[in-house]
Amino acid sequence: MNRLLTLLLLCIFLENAVSQQKPNFIIMLMDDMGWGDLGVYGEPSKETPNLDWMASQGMLLPDFYSANPLCSPSRAALMSGRLPIRNGFYTTNDHARNAYTPQDIMGGIPSNEILLPENLQKLGYRSKIIGKWHLGQQPQYHPLVHGFDEWFGAPNCHFGPFDNKRTPNIPVYRDTDMIGRYYEDYLIDHKTGESNLTQIFIREATTFIEKQAAQKQPFFLYWAVDATHEPVYASRDFLGSSQRGLYGDAVRELDYGVGQILQKVKDLGLVNNTMTIFSSDNGGATYAKEMGGNNGPFLCGKETTYEGGMREPTIAFWPGKIPAGTVSHQLGSLMDLYTTFTTLAGGSIPTDRVVDGIDLTQALFKQTIIDRPIFYYRGDELMAARWQQYKAHFWTWTNSQDEFDKGVNFCPGEEIDGVTTHEQVNNTAEPLLFHLGKDPGEKYMIKSTSVEYKGVMPQILKIVAEHRSQLVKGEPQLNMCDSSVMNWAPPGCEKINKCLPVPKSNPSKCVWVH
Amino acid sequence: MNRLLTLLLLCIFLENAVSQQKPNFIIMLMDDMGWGDLGVYGEPSKETPNLDWMASQGMLLPDFYSANPLCSPSRAALMSGRLPIRNGFYTTNDHARNAYTPQDIMGGIPSNEILLPENLQKLGYRSKIIGKWHLGQQPQYHPLVHGFDEWFGAPNCHFGPFDNKRTPNIPVYRDTDMIGRYYEDYLIDHKTGESNLTQIFIREATTFIEKQAAQKQPFFLYWAVDATHEPVYASRDFLGSSQRGLYGDAVRELDYGVGQILQKVKDLGLVNNTMTIFSSDNGGATYAKEMGGNNGPFLCGKETTYEGGMREPTIAFWPGKIPAGTVSHQLGSLMDLYTTFTTLAGGSIPTDRVVDGIDLTQALFKQTIIDRPIFYYRGDELMAARWQQYKAHFWTWTNSQDEFDKGVNFCPGEEIDGVTTHEQVNNTAEPLLFHLGKDPGEKYMIKSTSVEYKGVMPQILKIVAEHRSQLVKGEPQLNMCDSSVMNWAPPGCEKINKCLPVPKSNPSKCVWVH
Repeated sequence: MNRLLTLLLLCIFLENAVSQQKPNFIIMLMDDMGWGDLGVYGEPSKETPNLDWMASQGMLLPDFYSANPLCSPSRAALMSGRLPIRNGFYTTNDHARNAYTPQDIMGGIPSNEILLPENLQKLGYRSKIIGKWHLGQQPQYHPLVHGFDEWFGAPNCHFGPFDNKRTPNIPVYRDTDMIGRYYEDYLIDHKTGESNLTQIFIREATTFIEKQAAQKQPFFLYWAVDATHEPVYASRDFLGSSQRGLYGDAVRELDYGVGQILQKVKDLGLVNNTMTIFSSDNGGATYAKEMGGNNGPFLCGKETTYEGGMREPTIAFWPGKIPAGTVSHQLGSLMDLYTTFTTLAGGSIPTDRVVDGIDLTQALFKQTIIDRPIFYYRGDELMAARWQQYKAHFWTWTNSQDEFDKGVNFCPGEEIDGVTTHEQVNNTAEPLLFHLGKDPGEKYMIKSTSVEYKGVMPQILKIVAEHRSQLVKGEPQLNMCDSSVMNWAPPGCEKINKCLPVPKSNPSKCVWVH
Repeated sequence: MNRLLTLLLLCIFLENAVSQQKPNFIIMLMDDMGWGDLGVYGEPSKETPNLDWMASQGMLLPDFYSANPLCSPSRAALMSGRLPIRNGFYTTNDHARNAYTPQDIMGGIPSNEILLPENLQKLGYRSKIIGKWHLGQQPQYHPLVHGFDEWFGAPNCHFGPFDNKRTPNIPVYRDTDMIGRYYEDYLIDHKTGESNLTQIFIREATTFIEKQAAQKQPFFLYWAVDATHEPVYASRDFLGSSQRGLYGDAVRELDYGVGQILQKVKDLGLVNNTMTIFSSDNGGATYAKEMGGNNGPFLCGKETTYEGGMREPTIAFWPGKIPAGTVSHQLGSLMDLYTTFTTLAGGSIPTDRVVDGIDLTQALFKQTIIDRPIFYYRGDELMAARWQQYKAHFWTWTNSQDEFDKGVNFCPGEEIDGVTTHEQVNNTAEPLLFHLGKDPGEKYMIKSTSVEYKGVMPQILKIVAEHRSQLVKGEPQLNMCDSSVMNWAPPGCEKINKCLPVPKSNPSKCVWVH
């Protein structure tokens, strides 16, 4: 009996010890930041010393992708480990249209999707999202309903100011309750670009890490900051500090924030037990001109399925586990963080559905390469697929000629005959093929009569056929809009006297122009 | 008397000690390599570990320029410290035409130009050029007539094979005598891209350094390798080793060579007394498509005065002197190496002429910034000027519509209205203005009605007026061609039975199409 008790106590001790060793996870997800925006990824001003240092002590992943060229679907995929076409973050209103979650969207992340923080919550983790959620602004879609324990930030983009009559200002939440609104309590000065939001987001992060360290509870921090998304902003200390203007000021402040967070992790003795990933939700917004990100040598940007739209500036950092100063050409996806983190935490991946994210552990720790494709969706259409160095475009489209003629340009200064098309061109009968190693800018089509094309294309078509055969499309979430679901009277509004009258419901199909 | 003798001996001793401490200089000048071809400058394949290491232990210079977008004028400027318009490496046959030294050129580096190795020779240095000279193939223009003590390489590009009837194959020299010809004795296989030339150039370099170390004589090594210039080549061990195809194979082998040379310098104990500069002669040859270099986020490439044509991938390396892991945004030019090296060697700069190169010592050692402009010439025309972050285009031109229609494209996939023009457009009445920090791709013109434009343009115009007022144009060297001056019977041909009959002289104006 005594021996049994000893054994039992030993088991409890060991379980605790193991649970204490569960790694912490930090995802630093930038908003509209481009592949080429970091010094280490070739930005000429070289103004990201903290990120460059992070890369020098970690692993650079130059072939890492978002799951979509637009924010909401990309983030929904990151959280669910599944392509937007599966988790419902797309529209069928029109073919191959980018859709997201403006505040009149009716949909959001479906309750049957099992998000990364839900997996981690079951395993004893505490998770916090700081910044932009973007998976639905209605309460049933909020972070704390889907596995997060804490939230500081907003459900939508920091657009505005609005008049609070036809359109309410976007609320800022602490956990389940709103605590203010953008442009009322959380200011962004459009004229000067000044806002102290990034500083607040940094403080929220370091405070959360301190608290978790004190409580010895493993954590997942999702740092979803948005200073590089229009309206671009920076705090006073950073304004005018960059060679790149306001956009560069924002990058510099975010880089500073990365340094602050990594330093906090180190100071608290968590550095050997914390995996940090830096990346972005989609390519730089080239249509924003000087106020948009730099996509390096890649074609076009955000909204498109060319490399500029989905190749992300990614760094993985875990001293002692991920070898320092390495580069991995593993084809990676933000969705892989779902599988990798869940696995590292000791959890299991749902088996009742297809999960697109793969476990990157071996690629990160052992520098092995896992053979896997990348799928480039736009709305309901598979536009392109990458296999090894080859990328096949089944459909090409930038935006409509109409919109382009009005000055909206996703590929400013770039025109590639038959590639950057202003009509939706169906190339499925003879997909366009590019070698991204030799031709990162997708400029030089491989002739369909060539031996190379004939060797490669059947491989890609086979992978795509397999993909399609397993595809169960989710119920599209981004079809219907209704001004009554806007942020008129969010939870907690009554406590701070910020409730606005809710208009009559008037649902209609959302209009997605590109 | 005894005291005087002691003093004299002390002086001799000190002079010897100082002379022994004279630094060695290495210029590693690539051929048609683009700003974005190095990992550290954002090339996605990240296949330049030695150069990336060199940058991590030295200084990155992202705002460093060649003096011309084409090889011969760029190299003549590097050697003379003076713009091609001064040293004669331009043509007046037609306005704003790029000219160089094909083997029927009659001109070459004028005898009254004082080249860097001439300065160094007077100061006790031994200088060697390995690779491409390109300042004239006639004997009076050869390196050993202009200050070099040794030469292994060729006077012209490694084009060919020729028939030795209408056109002779290019000779390869050892010092004053030819020792063989390309495609006869020094092979390049166009089909496979195989050639062991880079390996020979590496061996020549390390052997020279060894010899100089043994002799304790300061040296200047000009490593002018050309594997990234068409026809691009690599040796068997490197063929197929890159993600980027043959071009990447060539880059990888050159990177390997950089590693070998730096290692040799270190092994011989010279590392703290040797300054090494890595750069390129002009931008990547975008017209060569996948076989051309990567110019990063910059517009167009070789042959043009957009940033892609003249911004060079530059690294400065001198452990103990140049602080490790630093970045300098000093506007630099290859011409500055003339002044910097001459000064560091204890020499003086000619005062009877304008020397454009400035002494970069303070920028390199102390990280100060010296305010100076960059001038972008094409042939006889000042196309553009940069001052701080601003660049003004006085003339714009890519190439003629005719040539473009035939498929010669210096800006593939890139078209910027009013900027990448196919006519020579004179903008001097209202120069186009760009902010290269916010807009490295020269896509977004600053409106001439803006406060910014009105503040900046007078500054630039003042600098340009000053420049013009001091300009004494050199006698143009690149106007006349004659097939009789080709490499038919170079010095030493008789020793190896490689002399070919010289045709009758028939001089005529050279034709320069772009």
